[in-house]
Formats: sequence, C-alpha cells, structure tokens
Amino acid sequence: MLTQRLAEFAIETKSSGVPGDVMDAARDALIDTLGCGIVGSTEEVGEIALRYVSGMQARREASVWGTHVATTMAEAAFVNGILGHALDFDDVHAAVHGHPSTTMIPAALAVGEANGASGESLAAAYAVGLEVAAKLGIAFGNGHYQRGWHSTATAGIFGSTVVAARLLGLPVPQLRHALGLAASQASGLLKNFGTMTKPFHAGHAARCAVQSALLARAGFTADTSIFDGDDSFLRTYGEKDSQPLGPLLDRLGTPWEALDPGISFKRWPCCYCNHRSIGVLLQMIERHGIRGEDVQAVEIGFPPGSDTALIHTNPQTGLEGKFSIEYVAAACLLDGKVGIDTFTDVMVNRPEVRALMHKVKRYRIQDSKMYSGSVGYNDVMVRTGRGEQRVREDRAPGSRAWPMSAAERDEKFLDCAGRVLGDVGARRVLDLAIGIRGLDDVGKLARAMVPAESAARVDRGASAVLAK
Amino acid sequence: MLTQRLAEFAIETKSSGVPGDVMDAARDALIDTLGCGIVGSTEEVGEIALRYVSGMQARREASVWGTHVATTMAEAAFVNGILGHALDFDDVHAAVHGHPSTTMIPAALAVGEANGASGESLAAAYAVGLEVAAKLGIAFGNGHYQRGWHSTATAGIFGSTVVAARLLGLPVPQLRHALGLAASQASGLLKNFGTMTKPFHAGHAARCAVQSALLARAGFTADTSIFDGDDSFLRTYGEKDSQPLGPLLDRLGTPWEALDPGISFKRWPCCYCNHRSIGVLLQMIERHGIRGEDVQAVEIGFPPGSDTALIHTNPQTGLEGKFSIEYVAAACLLDGKVGIDTFTDVMVNRPEVRALMHKVKRYRIQDSKMYSGSVGYNDVMVRTGRGEQRVREDRAPGSRAWPMSAAERDEKFLDCAGRVLGDVGARRVLDLAIGIRGLDDVGKLARAMVPAESAARVDRGASAVLAK
Repeated sequence: MLTQRLAEFAIETKSSGVPGDVMDAARDALIDTLGCGIVGSTEEVGEIALRYVSGMQARREASVWGTHVATTMAEAAFVNGILGHALDFDDVHAAVHGHPSTTMIPAALAVGEANGASGESLAAAYAVGLEVAAKLGIAFGNGHYQRGWHSTATAGIFGSTVVAARLLGLPVPQLRHALGLAASQASGLLKNFGTMTKPFHAGHAARCAVQSALLARAGFTADTSIFDGDDSFLRTYGEKDSQPLGPLLDRLGTPWEALDPGISFKRWPCCYCNHRSIGVLLQMIERHGIRGEDVQAVEIGFPPGSDTALIHTNPQTGLEGKFSIEYVAAACLLDGKVGIDTFTDVMVNRPEVRALMHKVKRYRIQDSKMYSGSVGYNDVMVRTGRGEQRVREDRAPGSRAWPMSAAERDEKFLDCAGRVLGDVGARRVLDLAIGIRGLDDVGKLARAMVPAESAARVDRGASAVLAK
Repeated sequence: MLTQRLAEFAIETKSSGVPGDVMDAARDALIDTLGCGIVGSTEEVGEIALRYVSGMQARREASVWGTHVATTMAEAAFVNGILGHALDFDDVHAAVHGHPSTTMIPAALAVGEANGASGESLAAAYAVGLEVAAKLGIAFGNGHYQRGWHSTATAGIFGSTVVAARLLGLPVPQLRHALGLAASQASGLLKNFGTMTKPFHAGHAARCAVQSALLARAGFTADTSIFDGDDSFLRTYGEKDSQPLGPLLDRLGTPWEALDPGISFKRWPCCYCNHRSIGVLLQMIERHGIRGEDVQAVEIGFPPGSDTALIHTNPQTGLEGKFSIEYVAAACLLDGKVGIDTFTDVMVNRPEVRALMHKVKRYRIQDSKMYSGSVGYNDVMVRTGRGEQRVREDRAPGSRAWPMSAAERDEKFLDCAGRVLGDVGARRVLDLAIGIRGLDDVGKLARAMVPAESAARVDRGASAVLAK
C-alpha cells in the first residue's frame, strides 16, 4: 500500500510539524519562483500563454503574476507555471531531476489565493509536496530522464497535486484518486527543450495537478493504488534503474528534501547543466584576465548523463542557446557575464559568437556512473596565446556547496521583479514573501504582484488582450 | 523529415480529395460518437466533468453535447471527449489500438462550431486525422499498449491535433509546432481502466489537441521534428516492436484507415476485448436455450495481448465491470442480454452474479503472436447439465467481418440520444448528422444537441450547476 502511505504522509503531516529551517527553505523557493515568474511575463512565451488564458474569460479566482489578469485556479496555475519557467532561471532540485518550484508554487498560490490559505499552510504544503516529488524522482531513476522525460513535469505533477490537495483540504482517500488521475496526465519531452514547450511543461503539470485535486474533491475516481503493484506508474514510466518506492517512503521528511540535498538557486538564466562551467569560466576571466578575442580553444568535459539536457550544439534562437554549452561558453567568454539579455535571438547570432562557438569542444568524460545536471562534475579547459587553464569543478553554483547568499538572492529577485513592478513594487512583494509564515492570507501576496499603473512598464500582456 | 511529410499530408489533402466512401465512414463515426456522448452526459463521470467545466464560466464558443452548457473550444472538446467515452460504447479502430472518434469528433465539432466550419470540412478532417492517429498507432506497436499506455489518448491526441489544425486553417509549419506541443501532452494509463479516468483520457487528449493547435496559431513554438531522429517521440513512447514511421507514411490514404481495417462499432457498452465472447454467448443462449442458472462452468481463452485491457477479475463497480470478462460473461448468461443498464454498481453486486462469476475461468491460449482487443480470437466454452458448447470465434462483432447494419446503428443512436433528447430531438440530430456532407455550418448540428425543455429528461448537468 505504497500509495496509501504516501498519501497519508502528504495529508497528515501538520504544518506545525514542518521544521523551521524547512519552512525557511520553502520561503526562499517561493521568493525565487515569484521573481522568475514576474519577469517571465515579459517573455514571448509568457505573453502568448497570457493571451490564451485571458481569452477564455473565465472566472477570476486567482491572479496571474505580474499582470492584471485573473482566471480560474487551474488556469492561473497553468500560466504562472509557464511564467515561472520561461527564462529557465528558476530553482533546481537534484532528486527531482529538474525544477521543483515552478510546478508547485503556481499550484500553491493559485489554490491558496482562491481559498484564503495562510502563508504557513502554503509553505508547509510546498515542503510536503517537495518530499513527494523528490522521492518519486529518485524512484524514477536517471533512466527516466535519459529516455527523454522532463522530470520537472513528470515528478512535479505529483508534488503539485499534493500541494493542491492540502490547500483544498482533501482527505487521504480523495488524494489517492487525485494521484491516480494526475498519473494519467504526466508528460513532457526533453526533445522540446529550447522551445516554448519546455516552460509549457511546468504550466501543464501545475494545471493538471490542480485540476486533479479539484475533480477528486468533486467525486472523480481513478485507480487509488497508482504506485502499487506490477502495473504501477513505474511499469510505464520507469526504467531499469528505477528504485523501489517502499524504502524511499521510509525517508519522507528524514531528512527533508528542502535541506538535503536542498534547493539550488540559479545565478544565470539557462539550463543548470551549464552552470558549473559558467562558474569556472567567470573565475578564469576574473583571475586570469581572459578575453573572448584571445581564446584559441575551449574544451568542456561532461561525465555521462550530465549534459543530457544540453540538446543544442548549434543553437539558432535565444531559447535554444539556453540548452547549448557551446553558446553559453562562447557568450560568457565574450561578454564576461551571463544574464537575461544573453539569451535573445540577436545575441545568439552575433558573428563573433558564431566564430567563438566553433572553438568550443564538448566531450564525454569516461565514467562508469551516471550523473545529472545537478550531480556530477565538469572539466573545463581554456587556451589562449598565454597558455592553458584547466579546472575540474564538482560544485554546482547556487547549490549548498557553492551557495548564493540571502543578499544575492534578494538582489536576483529585485532585478527580476523590478523589471515589471518597479523597485517599490518589487520590494513590497519581497517583504510580503519574506514574511510568508506570518501572512494570514496568501491572496495579499498574489495581489501585490499586480503592477501599479505607475510601475516600470505597462502590463503588455493585458494590453495585448484588451487590444484583441 | 517524417514530421514534415506527415504535416503536409494532414494539411494539403483537400476535402474534395477524400473519397466518398471514406466520407461516409466518417459520417457513421460521427453519428456513433454523438449518440454515445449525448447519453454519456447522464453518467456520473459526465456530470462531474460538466460541473467542473461549467464552473469555469468561460466564454461560450462551443456546445457541450446533450446539455445547455457552452464553453471554450478546448473545454468543450475536453468534456465532450469524456462524454463520448463515458459508457465505453464508442467506436474502435484496430490500428489506433483503441477508440478513434471520442478524441477526434469532440475536437472537430468544438472547433467547427466556433469557426462555422462546413460538414464536409469536418468529415474530411476526421478522415485525415484518423490516417495520422492510425499510422502512429501502428508505429507505436503493440508493446506501447502492453507497457501500460492507453493508445486512445496517446495516438488520438495527434489525430485530434490534425483535426483542429485543419479546421483552424493552420499552415504546415504551425501544425509541426502543434504536433511537437501535443507530443508533450500525450498521456493516459491502462491502470486507470475501470475508473472515471479512462474516459477522462479521451477528453484530456481532445482538449490538449485543440489547445496545441490554438497555441501554435498564436505563435507558440515546439520541436518541429517530433517524429524525426534518434530522440523522436518514439524513443520515449516506443517499444521494441515499434515500426519505422517512414514506410507507414507512404501508406497515408492508401488505403484509407476508415475503410481498411475500418471503424468497428460497438453493440454493447463495455471494453471491446469482451465483444467476441459476448457475441458467442448470445448465440449460444439463442441457439441452445442456455440459462444462467443451468451453467456449471464457463471457460474463455484469450491469446496473448487480447485481454490486456480486461484488468478486473473481481469488479466491485459498474465501471470496473466493463473491464472484466468474468462479470460480462456472468451477466450475459444470467440476463440474456448486455446493455447500458448492465454496468451499474448494483447490477455488478447481485448475489447471483457473484456466484456465477466464480464459475467463469479466463485462461491464456498459447500463441507466438501478439494480439489486441480488435485483432485476435477467443475460445468460448459453456457447460450445463446438458453438455458442453465450444466455439472459436475470430470475428469481432461490429467490425467489417461481423458488421452492424445501418439500421442497427441508427437504432443504437436513437436509443442513446433519445434518453436525453427524446425521440423527436434524437431523430432531428440523426437527420442532421446523416446529411453532414451537405451541412453548411456544423454549429447547426451542435446546437441541435441542446435538449428542449420538453425533452425526455430535464438536463441534470445544467441543473446541478445552477443549484451550486
């Protein structure tokens, strides 16, 4: 009865029983996700999704971040999930094999706003949802990802279903139905990385999760033992390296996934598989004064599995560039930095970038183990006329081994959110989010993300809708 | 460039280029699906889905069959897909390994109504969509189904995306994006058979298909070669027996799947894997006067793969009973018939049924080949005090080998639709659907499915919504 055990943990863990440092980690994930999502509303993918959802003219239950739009809980989760992942700047979790928060925070805030949930219940729901998504992510194994699945969505949908179920007050039996229903909506392909469909995966998982919880509450039925038996979810989605779920369930909350391995925050808005190399390259630039025009050759080694998501070797668009170590290394060396503006079509197609990309060689490091974007190491070599620099790096920037400080994370949030809400608006959202555990109604936070008329930009999404 | 070839066929095949007998088959599938869907609105799964969608209060673009509810194109496709599959009474296609029409007709009629499409364009879109779903179904192979996928949804989503794209006027490049986006939403698990989530699969596929076409039209991007390369859709969803798509694309429209193997129509509202046995049992009852109380033993043999969908050996609910040869055989022998009323919780739990079910033995016929619900054979043995009857049957009732006549299909439609629309209303919808090829606006057909106040029943779904 694995499904029953999982559902019992998910529902019966009290908010007051989640340790304070886990709640703090949930708060940090909330802040990071909101920042990424608010600025995500200015990305083209965000604007299209926003127009689509606005066009439904559905009941205004929950807010779309950084805009004046409101829609149903499920649709708000959908579009906010897309916004949160639009820049690929949102947080990462090793066990999820992907992005934990851009599926769960949109589901949490949409359901929370519509139901007047407290900040404490939202943070606890996130922490418990992450336990479920991460333990399932481990059960799925690396082979699941290697077969082409985007675990962010296929593991995330279950975490998000738990989040929605808690905030809707579902009892254990209804959560079991909701998990069965969610299982039949788990999807998302790695082949779509570098297109708008990658952030879509997060939104789709968030929407399907909220919908599953709502339908289960209304009496909808599904298999209530979706993780049990020879015909379990893992028969279809698992691979040879799948792990039995039973022993993993023994470890629910011991330790909490939010702390161990912990949530990694991104310093740069591109696939996490690039980040060790970026960290090394920026250090080389700083320490050795390397300039792009001096570079003769770059070699970046990846052990097996650690560059599976970097599917583009010759990117043509900004989105494809996010999934190309060839582009990222070239841009980093030429510009001396990596930021939101790095990933536009124009920047990817600069002649000096194309020239330097040809000098970047990616190669496979022989290693009997399988790694991922979060877990592994890279060998980085840069050669100029002045000699070679070689570094092996196993710490992922933004992880607990090489952390972003609270001040750096605040700075990231204010930079992202400020582009839409202005400095004052962004600061107000940050203050509310920092105080999430004391917030009586998370709707106050959701509504604080509506831009003032005097904010940094007119809300383009909403304007486009009105112009239709 | 398999994706390009597929998309070219899907868009560039003119309605006038689809042969008349193929259009007739599309018409017959339309009639069958509408009948199943209209009465599906009275099933509990239909009522819950209807309340969920009504609660969105979204823009009224397309009608929900058999009700007064209207909603957006995508949501109408969603709920009508659920209604169409609610009774598991809708048509079957061997190459799709499932139900072709309950994903495609809801998508077609929702988009067609909202855009004033002609009946000819709708029928042609269906025929072309079926080519795509069926060729992909063959490419996926039997192993896809055996791994636990519900092909109705995973193949159907692509057929439905083609249908929606044609009726929205998408050019080939946008369809390629839509197919890539749809691929990331292909889902549906066999483990959920016998619950409300099975019909949900059809609705989910139909909605995701419409949404994919709409988003692609709005500029949304996805991988445009989703069926090409080592990392194609089939890397993730295919199995060892997957077939290369290239040779299958050579056979698009030669012959048309609507004619060869053709669409099978169900005489009885339960999983098609039961139907050969039901056909045999009813013949035995008629020819030999077998009565349930006289039965000492029943043995039903299935070759490999032909009872994969019959996942319940000891069903507790009407829905589970649809996927149990043990129940279906017992009920058939006791009642002398199988109908909509056979599959209620009360009927499944009758003591005399439970007793007879224990005398029904299912066994595996040794055969080196793999079969499916549509393709294969069964050995049926019934023993009474007067002796044994043994029959091997390879014709599936409702298929071209053992067809339903046009009159029988009309009778099925009128029985189904009449329960909601009354006799006059049902006849009117049937006449419009029979004349689909000459209909200037399929909205007329959609709106004819709204029950009159004086119809056979007050629309329960809408009443429930209003009472909320």
